[in-house]
Amino acid sequence: VNPVDLRLYGIVDPAVGRGRDLGALALEAVAGGCTLVQYRDKQAVTRAAVEQARALKAALDGTGVPLLVNDRVDVALAAGADGVHLGRDDMHPADARRLLGEDAVIGVTLKSAADADGLAGLPVDYGCVGGVFATASKPNPDPPIGLGGLAALVARARAARRLPVGAIAGIDAANAAFVIAAGADGVAVISALFAADDVAAAARDLRGIVDRSLASRGALA
Amino acid sequence: VNPVDLRLYGIVDPAVGRGRDLGALALEAVAGGCTLVQYRDKQAVTRAAVEQARALKAALDGTGVPLLVNDRVDVALAAGADGVHLGRDDMHPADARRLLGEDAVIGVTLKSAADADGLAGLPVDYGCVGGVFATASKPNPDPPIGLGGLAALVARARAARRLPVGAIAGIDAANAAFVIAAGADGVAVISALFAADDVAAAARDLRGIVDRSLASRGALA
Repeated sequence: VNPVDLRLYGIVDPAVGRGRDLGALALEAVAGGCTLVQYRDKQAVTRAAVEQARALKAALDGTGVPLLVNDRVDVALAAGADGVHLGRDDMHPADARRLLGEDAVIGVTLKSAADADGLAGLPVDYGCVGGVFATASKPNPDPPIGLGGLAALVARARAARRLPVGAIAGIDAANAAFVIAAGADGVAVISALFAADDVAAAARDLRGIVDRSLASRGALA
Repeated sequence: VNPVDLRLYGIVDPAVGRGRDLGALALEAVAGGCTLVQYRDKQAVTRAAVEQARALKAALDGTGVPLLVNDRVDVALAAGADGVHLGRDDMHPADARRLLGEDAVIGVTLKSAADADGLAGLPVDYGCVGGVFATASKPNPDPPIGLGGLAALVARARAARRLPVGAIAGIDAANAAFVIAAGADGVAVISALFAADDVAAAARDLRGIVDRSLASRGALA
């Protein structure tokens, strides 16, 4: 298992960035305290995705913040990214691990009790509970699971395997504290960071909430 | 450069196979004389594409006929396919070669004089002139180049580099002889093979035409 810091996981997607340069957006987010960056692009042709991933990797060079690629192991390999995030329709994590090697960071989406239980047998470094709140960033056929559903899935994932567990979908400065209180190790955000006018300020705000909530949870434990 | 036999290049695509099992279709095509198989699927999610490519590779096991994957280097790597076919929107051939290794077969589509000239600097094993005739198998924004355009691009590609050069788009038993007469080393076909009721018979027919046309061209040379 590779160490991974999920406290503020920023997902850059050209569908959300309002035409702004994704490398610049990612760097602003990192300047504000983003701990992990994912490049997600369901529309780009392969050659453009490789070029975009390379530009993101170059933008993050020297920050120490890893770049993961959503779904596409080929894009991650060609661009020298640090790993991939895989949903249930993406490459099986065992295949991805074989292709990317032991040092790559591989994460999976957890949407069901079966997904959480399945963590025990997968060569992955983190889980991210999906569909917590309603979101406009991605079409989601399932109803949101809410904070209760999140708490249950986090507990189930932790029982299956000791790995960092994040949370995604509709998370923003108004609900991030509750997400951490429900047990998540961090928040994965798209619109709350990258649709903001001031991405660095939005990141500082979110990271502050996460850090304070993690500290409170630690004090109560 | 890895040797590759383009005489009858069959491209299996679920959009064309009328719901029939792609592995069975590919095997029928090979039984009829198909010399190279490509798996093309622009709709499948990654996990399903890997499973389909694996099934195709297993179906072709022992036939000696290589399996290439359209566009997706990740799918080719995960499924243990023999290589990839790359268009201008797909991964750059130099990146694909680095990821797939020296033994992989890598081919590219040639649609313009610049593409043909560019063959000189690419680590690829064959070219395939695209858009020869009108086709229903794939949306194509460019007008067909016809036999005259094909002959010109084949000549230009051969001047750039000594590689096998195939041809694709709208090729069938009625025009395959002319395609070979125009200089191609073989024909790449989709509908003419995989929309047929008897795929093996269609392959035998096409392969016979290609072989006779190559022999006639050789006798004239």
